[in-house]
Amino acid sequence: MPFQIQVELIYQVLQPSTVLLSLHALSTPNQQLIQETFSVNEGVRCEIFPLEIGQNRYVRVATGDQEELKLVYEVEVETHPDSQRIRDIRDVPVGHLPRVALPYLFPSRYCESDRLYRLAGQLFGKIDHPLAQAQAISDWIFQNVSYVPGISNASTGACETLVERAGVCRDFAHLGIALCRALSIPARYFTGYACGMKPQDFHACFEVCVGGDWFVFDPTRLAAPNGLVRIASGRDAADASLATIFGAMNLTSMKVSCESSDFQPLHREDLQGRAVNLEP
Amino acid sequence: MPFQIQVELIYQVLQPSTVLLSLHALSTPNQQLIQETFSVNEGVRCEIFPLEIGQNRYVRVATGDQEELKLVYEVEVETHPDSQRIRDIRDVPVGHLPRVALPYLFPSRYCESDRLYRLAGQLFGKIDHPLAQAQAISDWIFQNVSYVPGISNASTGACETLVERAGVCRDFAHLGIALCRALSIPARYFTGYACGMKPQDFHACFEVCVGGDWFVFDPTRLAAPNGLVRIASGRDAADASLATIFGAMNLTSMKVSCESSDFQPLHREDLQGRAVNLEP
Amino acid sequence: MPFQIQVELIYQVLQPSTVLLSLHALSTPNQQLIQETFSVNEGVRCEIFPLEIGQNRYVRVATGDQEELKLVYEVEVETHPDSQRIRDIRDVPVGHLPRVALPYLFPSRYCESDRLYRLAGQLFGKIDHPLAQAQAISDWIFQNVSYVPGISNASTGACETLVERAGVCRDFAHLGIALCRALSIPARYFTGYACGMKPQDFHACFEVCVGGDWFVFDPTRLAAPNGLVRIASGRDAADASLATIFGAMNLTSMKVSCESSDFQPLHREDLQGRAVNLEP
Amino acid sequence: MPFQIQVELIYQVLQPSTVLLSLHALSTPNQQLIQETFSVNEGVRCEIFPLEIGQNRYVRVATGDQEELKLVYEVEVETHPDSQRIRDIRDVPVGHLPRVALPYLFPSRYCESDRLYRLAGQLFGKIDHPLAQAQAISDWIFQNVSYVPGISNASTGACETLVERAGVCRDFAHLGIALCRALSIPARYFTGYACGMKPQDFHACFEVCVGGDWFVFDPTRLAAPNGLVRIASGRDAADASLATIFGAMNLTSMKVSCESSDFQPLHREDLQGRAVNLEP
Repeated sequence: MPFQIQVELIYQVLQPSTVLLSLHALSTPNQQLIQETFSVNEGVRCEIFPLEIGQNRYVRVATGDQEELKLVYEVEVETHPDSQRIRDIRDVPVGHLPRVALPYLFPSRYCESDRLYRLAGQLFGKIDHPLAQAQAISDWIFQNVSYVPGISNASTGACETLVERAGVCRDFAHLGIALCRALSIPARYFTGYACGMKPQDFHACFEVCVGGDWFVFDPTRLAAPNGLVRIASGRDAADASLATIFGAMNLTSMKVSCESSDFQPLHREDLQGRAVNLEP
Repeated sequence: MPFQIQVELIYQVLQPSTVLLSLHALSTPNQQLIQETFSVNEGVRCEIFPLEIGQNRYVRVATGDQEELKLVYEVEVETHPDSQRIRDIRDVPVGHLPRVALPYLFPSRYCESDRLYRLAGQLFGKIDHPLAQAQAISDWIFQNVSYVPGISNASTGACETLVERAGVCRDFAHLGIALCRALSIPARYFTGYACGMKPQDFHACFEVCVGGDWFVFDPTRLAAPNGLVRIASGRDAADASLATIFGAMNLTSMKVSCESSDFQPLHREDLQGRAVNLEP
Repeated sequence: MPFQIQVELIYQVLQPSTVLLSLHALSTPNQQLIQETFSVNEGVRCEIFPLEIGQNRYVRVATGDQEELKLVYEVEVETHPDSQRIRDIRDVPVGHLPRVALPYLFPSRYCESDRLYRLAGQLFGKIDHPLAQAQAISDWIFQNVSYVPGISNASTGACETLVERAGVCRDFAHLGIALCRALSIPARYFTGYACGMKPQDFHACFEVCVGGDWFVFDPTRLAAPNGLVRIASGRDAADASLATIFGAMNLTSMKVSCESSDFQPLHREDLQGRAVNLEP
Repeated sequence: MPFQIQVELIYQVLQPSTVLLSLHALSTPNQQLIQETFSVNEGVRCEIFPLEIGQNRYVRVATGDQEELKLVYEVEVETHPDSQRIRDIRDVPVGHLPRVALPYLFPSRYCESDRLYRLAGQLFGKIDHPLAQAQAISDWIFQNVSYVPGISNASTGACETLVERAGVCRDFAHLGIALCRALSIPARYFTGYACGMKPQDFHACFEVCVGGDWFVFDPTRLAAPNGLVRIASGRDAADASLATIFGAMNLTSMKVSCESSDFQPLHREDLQGRAVNLEP
């Protein structure tokens, strides 16, 4: 059941610029890259550095004097998502969390969890299992926040989304992360591709760490959790921006597709009382 | 010229709690720990885990049922700060920055650099060297922001400090970091001890990465740069909080001292055109 | 059932200052001032101007060179609050609102109703009468926001209170006003004295205009509605601040009392399905 | 030198709605309406109420079931702006301000002057005349804030503009007002028509009250002060919105023009040391 992913990005380059790109699928034990190609338009004198920051691969491209930057990325990926019964996953107190999870307890640029202790406690504090809390948070966001493109921007954080009650996948994920962290559940931002999502686009959701594993939640309900292909993990979108531009470039065209010939999406009713983890 | 550091913290414990502490001095090539002791009060059943997140050492203490937590930390540290002529340090374009510096270009919880591109460009964009920019930013903060304890709190970020024009060392550092990142200069938060600072307290300032080295700036001008002993580095105070409490504890007493018998503070006039780096 | 009100304020005057005070009880058809005295300390060369802004009385005091300003205000007031059955009050569409109510539809400094349309609609949009909506908003605030002195400050607005879920009477009132306005219900800020409130202090709550009358709601539930004595009405606390200081003065002592020998407080159970209006 | 003003607004009406319009020119001693017509499309069953809130005229239109609302407003106006030498205008301390000016000292929705005391004092506190301060504020905004349509929205206030350093005429005016109030100078929002402004549009700027008169400043420098025709004054845009819609309507077309056959714009060099007041 491999996923076929194709991305084409075209930028108008207004001045010689450097761009950090985060669009390569990660290679992990549960996410195998079968075949991968990445190209930039011929004229561009570019340097490519595959980077490792935390778990992410970055590519750094310097445009030189070219007026257009065209990036084409294609990859075939196989994933092995798993699901576990929430009640079977042992809750670990903060004092025993794995060390790698600790940074994901702290507030970050778009996830101001330090301001949300009271609210998170009121709404979700009585639920007795952190994965049930994360599920309730994801459901609450779906029910209380409207998916409205164009209402948020690159500065929008979780508290603003909480007030405005509208946003896109990025905002939904930030709010989910902030509420989880406010309950002392480590939570991180997930960006990736989503098989079968309509319309096709990059997607964002969030993962929480319970009992040593990371489980994924999508408060937009736009993507099936078993159709996700990870590009990056991070504290929030500041860590996992598709493109960080130093200079001046405009995105003039973007095509994304993630398909599979035999994909069977997991639905919510398939997952009662269970949570999906993408990596073992 | 070793520094003698002594810390005593006493917390009232309102319920069994876990606390992540960040008060141990780092051990680095340029900062040697000659002798170090750390103790908690006898009655406390505690677990201590020295942790490594990024460059920081954390201690995790579980209070159990004790009603008081008393922490005593003593260390003797030798540092070897260096200073370089700003004009001798080669500026490296973003495309050639060392990979470890890249995360420090992104906005973080208290350093909303994504909102400050215009302002930073207006005020400091014409200065032609990133270390001269960082120095100008540090000077501007000193001249335009008042040091006023009590006016900011744990939620205060750089944009709020920019508007309110008042804060403490933490706020000064956050504003410095945010303005540097807005100019594409990697900048990180520094917490530590400061020899001879009055009154004695934990201190915060910021470092920028230029030409592969990190240089320190203190916009409060309260500490001499050669009297700094590093506890932690991070994106901002969210990464390097003295104590992150899970549970309920109140700090009831804090004593901090950092002294040296023969310390010769570097003054601003000693540093014209030079910048101090704490590590090679 | 007259109320006996006594106020004594003492300020330390750091430089010659002017202060606008709003502590005089209003004189209205339903609120009669039986006896009133106001004095400032003898040495102070002051000018007193009773002012009329909207419905409020201001006093303007210039301290001159005195180092202390002592204000004593005493008044005996009789009020005639009324209550009406909510279902008997005819809802008037925005197109027929009285003109004086229109400014109270707009957002103001501490009541950012323009950001709360979605949230207010979600939580209270299906309730079919504006007074039932106002009652539900007041109840929701009582249930979801904690009364915590010291957590908010003079800059705190309704959106911040909505996120932080804590504040004092001023914050509760601002949030109530903002949510009502977001539903197109004119809402204004009420400041006054509250008979029998513990501890004795100035109080704030809010009024909404439905069917041409103003009805009062107190989301803190600290005061009985029939024990309220109005000082001022306004869009929010910016209009009805106890003291607006131009210069430099510190409040060093404040005593407030509002008592009545035979006051029978109205309780919530006395008011099922009814709303209280303080003026006819 | 009468101004010919023509406005045509067309709204798509999505559901029966009420709209409060503020587009009629005011009639004042210094601004005479020579001829005025206002019409709505025939099919619309509408009620029109000329309203007076503070100094403004509102029109309230109820669309009924019509699917389109077309408003045409035409007016011929004669104004008599005056200019005075700043040094001839006596500064009046807060203790002697006219009562009508006092509300314009307080913070409002988009003018959070309560947060700007330090900054305003730093930048403009040493200038010794309030009109010279207002002029310096207007100049500072012009020099430090970029005119960028689309970057701000209906929630944007002065503090955000101060951070982002970009906005439109409304944002420029809000920042000017907030900075003046932070210096205890009464300041109000002005909306109106601007003869010869390119492109033709509604315009906003601000006025300050000194010595009993109101003087106008335009930090965008887009309009000549003697070409302004007042629609409304208010604390900020919340008081003087072109259209406040209760229901659901989209503006689909807007045409505005303000012309004069013999208009001689006042330039900045004509106004050295002078300030323009629109009303006596």
